[in-house]
Amino acid sequence: MTTHRIAVIPGDGIGREVVPAGMEALEATAGRFGITLEFDTFDFASADYWQRHGTMLPTDWEETLRSYDAIFFGAVGWPEVVPDHVSLWGSLLQFRRTFDQYVNLRPCRLMPGVRSPLAGREPGDIDFVVVRENTEGEYSSIGGRIFEGTERETVLQETVMTRVGVDRVLRFAFEQAARRPKQHLTSATKSNGISISMPYWDERVAEMKGQFPAVRVDKFHIDALAAQFVLHPEWFDVVVASNLFGDILSDLGPACTGTLGIAPSANINPERDHPSLFEPVHGSAPDIAGRGIANPVGQIWCGSMMLEHLGHPEAAAHLLAAIEKVLSYGPGEAPLTPDLHGKGTTAELGRAIADQV
Amino acid sequence: MTTHRIAVIPGDGIGREVVPAGMEALEATAGRFGITLEFDTFDFASADYWQRHGTMLPTDWEETLRSYDAIFFGAVGWPEVVPDHVSLWGSLLQFRRTFDQYVNLRPCRLMPGVRSPLAGREPGDIDFVVVRENTEGEYSSIGGRIFEGTERETVLQETVMTRVGVDRVLRFAFEQAARRPKQHLTSATKSNGISISMPYWDERVAEMKGQFPAVRVDKFHIDALAAQFVLHPEWFDVVVASNLFGDILSDLGPACTGTLGIAPSANINPERDHPSLFEPVHGSAPDIAGRGIANPVGQIWCGSMMLEHLGHPEAAAHLLAAIEKVLSYGPGEAPLTPDLHGKGTTAELGRAIADQV
Ligand SMILES: CC(C)[C@H](C(=O)O)[C@@H](O)C(=O)O
Ligand SMILES: CC(C)[C@H](C(=O)O)[C@@H](O)C(=O)O
Repeated sequence: MTTHRIAVIPGDGIGREVVPAGMEALEATAGRFGITLEFDTFDFASADYWQRHGTMLPTDWEETLRSYDAIFFGAVGWPEVVPDHVSLWGSLLQFRRTFDQYVNLRPCRLMPGVRSPLAGREPGDIDFVVVRENTEGEYSSIGGRIFEGTERETVLQETVMTRVGVDRVLRFAFEQAARRPKQHLTSATKSNGISISMPYWDERVAEMKGQFPAVRVDKFHIDALAAQFVLHPEWFDVVVASNLFGDILSDLGPACTGTLGIAPSANINPERDHPSLFEPVHGSAPDIAGRGIANPVGQIWCGSMMLEHLGHPEAAAHLLAAIEKVLSYGPGEAPLTPDLHGKGTTAELGRAIADQV
Repeated sequence: MTTHRIAVIPGDGIGREVVPAGMEALEATAGRFGITLEFDTFDFASADYWQRHGTMLPTDWEETLRSYDAIFFGAVGWPEVVPDHVSLWGSLLQFRRTFDQYVNLRPCRLMPGVRSPLAGREPGDIDFVVVRENTEGEYSSIGGRIFEGTERETVLQETVMTRVGVDRVLRFAFEQAARRPKQHLTSATKSNGISISMPYWDERVAEMKGQFPAVRVDKFHIDALAAQFVLHPEWFDVVVASNLFGDILSDLGPACTGTLGIAPSANINPERDHPSLFEPVHGSAPDIAGRGIANPVGQIWCGSMMLEHLGHPEAAAHLLAAIEKVLSYGPGEAPLTPDLHGKGTTAELGRAIADQV
């Protein structure tokens, strides 16, 4: 019996509502595949914690979380109480960097029973993954302000790309592409406009290409690429991008497939030197929080990605298939949540998926 | 009789094919409204010029162009001959900065006869404009490389925002919003992740808001905003964004309306201290260049924006209406180009619009 220790951080808003549903589906899957998951739940990385302690995290957070095999994360952010750049840099973004989760992986696929905003697209048509650099680049937090409060006020913020940082995420993306049937990698750039960092990115892509002769590589400037996600999402297989471009593309991709509310993301340290973190793409959703109607599919899909990362690809695939099955029943036969035109609650939809497992 | 002197720069690829069609439609409109346009055509800002001279522009380009009332621009970029970051920084991006064209204005609207990739959208449903900062921000060209060629290689690129630069584009956007029926302004930010420059942007928006009490203001992080362009394009009226975010949004917007190949853009110096520049959003399109089948509508629509800028709103509206009329005939009755499922050539479609004028 394999045992994995999982740190659970529900965070804010609907994070707290969908995480229990995610745990239930994970328990069911683990039971079926002879895996033991030990969950410990933490209250930090939330606005509540911030209100009580004036910080997002306890001083020993790193030590505490480091002993876990993975982090199962809900959502963080409650701008009424704490500004987003404080709560995010004080938790999620810090986890990514401290635990060197340098790959952010986000699948974009049409799911049965989910309506895409694009005309005439069917499940099977769109199925790609965005590999986002997750620790450096545009999210540098280096910079500052001069001549503050005057007409000459000037603000600088640095983008930082390192060879180590760029190469390792590119390698991960090339490896992903090499393992998929289409063996196609698209690089997001903007070397025509952002004339120092992005030409460097292109250079490293060109260099790495030599090591993966079977992978077909192309590149698009981010403006054109965003456009092609809408016009030709079927063109893409693996898309690799810098921190900011990956952020944009991995929201836009799920928007195109209609899965923004249910898409998962994995913040991975591929070497497993540190715990990886699994969180849905959706945020804390203050507008619907507290009503028990948030869609738990993103959180459950995260569970599937977590099982995959922990070395259980079959269990992961089984859980994903259960999600797809329940979605395919439609709002008439499954307790789908209001966003999917059903009348189900978070708990009911979570239960239905757990039962399907 | 008003006379305007226009510098014409066809540039590369299909730029050379669509510019004559644009001039023809402009001549027709000018004739009808008692406006005289004097065109002078220049061969610089092109790969040909670069091959002959080793630079993109003659040394006296600034003096030369400064004496014109506007620049009617085709497209620049021919990566087989000159790398994009060289050709762009050596021409278009330099024009924007030297002539302080600090507003880049790009309409996103559903046009009759043009299919949107979004399901169930009709002309009238989507009609917004992106106001992009066009001289600073992420396009700074400040930065460099250290430990070159080693494992420690590190590349820095600076984002620069100034109070002057941010405030003036915000003011323009607020003024645009104040003049439109919906009086709604959306600001693109990423202050939750890009933690120095983007919170500053937000701060300036909040400050300026006080001066435009009638304008309803909201903000979205760029990732969520890109997603909402696909999911709810009808939400938007005026969208204001930094240089990079504006670049992305003003390609994504026209992609959502199906008008990427025909959208115009205006690089404006609102104070008219310097000539403004009008260019279609599409590039030089090496794949179809030389075949005479490029769609000239973007270039002609640019002509309409140029007339507006030159102080002829009625002529501008008339030309835009002529475009819409011809598009609405469909490929059966109008010589629409292949991208619009017709068999027309660039020249034929241009002529049809000029005749409609
Ligand atoms: C060609 C490129 C440098 C340019 C830009 O990024 O500004 C283009 O995409 C545009 O939007 O005009
Ligand atoms: C909340 C925000 C800082 C974060 C990011 O930009 O990385 C989010 O958008 C994401 O994609 O995980």
